[in-house]
Amino acid sequence: MSTFTADPQFKLYAICCSILSVQMLLLGGLTAAKRAKNMKHLNPEDTSVAFKGTTLVGDTEPPDVARIQRAHRNLLESLPLFFALGLIYVLAGGSPLGAQICFGAFTGARVLHSIVYINALQPWRTITYAIGTFALVGLVVQILLTVLA
Amino acid sequence: MSTFTADPQFKLYAICCSILSVQMLLLGGLTAAKRAKNMKHLNPEDTSVAFKGTTLVGDTEPPDVARIQRAHRNLLESLPLFFALGLIYVLAGGSPLGAQICFGAFTGARVLHSIVYINALQPWRTITYAIGTFALVGLVVQILLTVLA
Amino acid sequence: MSTFTADPQFKLYAICCSILSVQMLLLGGLTAAKRAKNMKHLNPEDTSVAFKGTTLVGDTEPPDVARIQRAHRNLLESLPLFFALGLIYVLAGGSPLGAQICFGAFTGARVLHSIVYINALQPWRTITYAIGTFALVGLVVQILLTVLA
Repeated sequence: MSTFTADPQFKLYAICCSILSVQMLLLGGLTAAKRAKNMKHLNPEDTSVAFKGTTLVGDTEPPDVARIQRAHRNLLESLPLFFALGLIYVLAGGSPLGAQICFGAFTGARVLHSIVYINALQPWRTITYAIGTFALVGLVVQILLTVLA
Repeated sequence: MSTFTADPQFKLYAICCSILSVQMLLLGGLTAAKRAKNMKHLNPEDTSVAFKGTTLVGDTEPPDVARIQRAHRNLLESLPLFFALGLIYVLAGGSPLGAQICFGAFTGARVLHSIVYINALQPWRTITYAIGTFALVGLVVQILLTVLA
Repeated sequence: MSTFTADPQFKLYAICCSILSVQMLLLGGLTAAKRAKNMKHLNPEDTSVAFKGTTLVGDTEPPDVARIQRAHRNLLESLPLFFALGLIYVLAGGSPLGAQICFGAFTGARVLHSIVYINALQPWRTITYAIGTFALVGLVVQILLTVLA
């Protein structure tokens, strides 16, 4: 057994990354599914794999597809930060409590963010976005304190 | 010599990430090259570095530039997942066979995906996208089995 | 004390990732702030959190918001490559000098790139972009030399 799987913080990081990765894949799949429901396809050559009778998306996506894409892009903008900062935190030997708070808050907030974004629920979208951002800032602060100590 | 370079799974991960990173950089460069070929530039201030006589892109990119951008964005959406899940898999001490199958399938499928996307080849685009996604799901499943065991 | 925080290359990587992560968060916040200054909001439901009297963005963002978004997206396209390649370099036991040059050049160039992009300064945008790309290619070359040796 490797030393990393014995580290509870690494375990938590691995589980959070797994959840967030599946969420990214689901949002990508949802975009394609919604587009098909709107009888649209993205590329001229897609007529061979799309349902018959769909038309090309053109310059603007249908509103519900565009909404999922905004949720998708928003997640894409914060996910690489968590992937990098979370692992640096684990490898730097950050405290278990800090990992539980920041990893848990980020993952929970970002899963909820996608759900409330797609369902157009404010102020929840802003609140979950803020929690995700605070969790990342919390990781940065703890990493710098550990590394510069 | 560090312990990681002696780990065949880490070596494979490093090689796959190198290939995919170069591919990302090439797609970025290809976008700029195609734009120049279309006599377009992206920002008003680019007249100082663009060929003389180019015009501003405006709201919509030329179709062949937009196609490369879609291929680029599609890669950008899946690459961070592989970077994170691949390294977690290596650090968690996942099986060599699982690494060879998932790392190899993802890298091969995503390199081909960009090529068939730019050349508008269906159903190959859908097939290579699906293989890349299955490889990521395979990593998630193996990570969770290892970590939760 | 874990072994990683005793590794100067890991320390440098952690500091660079922290700086670049904060920069990503700032660019995201700047987009929202500029949109508010233009009296625009992105989603119909945002009237509950936006200043009164703002109107929906629609298909095209105001030019200064679109500019920040291009700077943001440009950073997003290169950041995951640095996060992955930088850590692989550290774990593979790359040379201290290579880390100082490539990590330092990438971080400095990308911070400057966002600033000169937002202020529309050419040829500086092209120069800083090129330096960032060379730093990534430098990491790929050194990783492959180490791993394939």
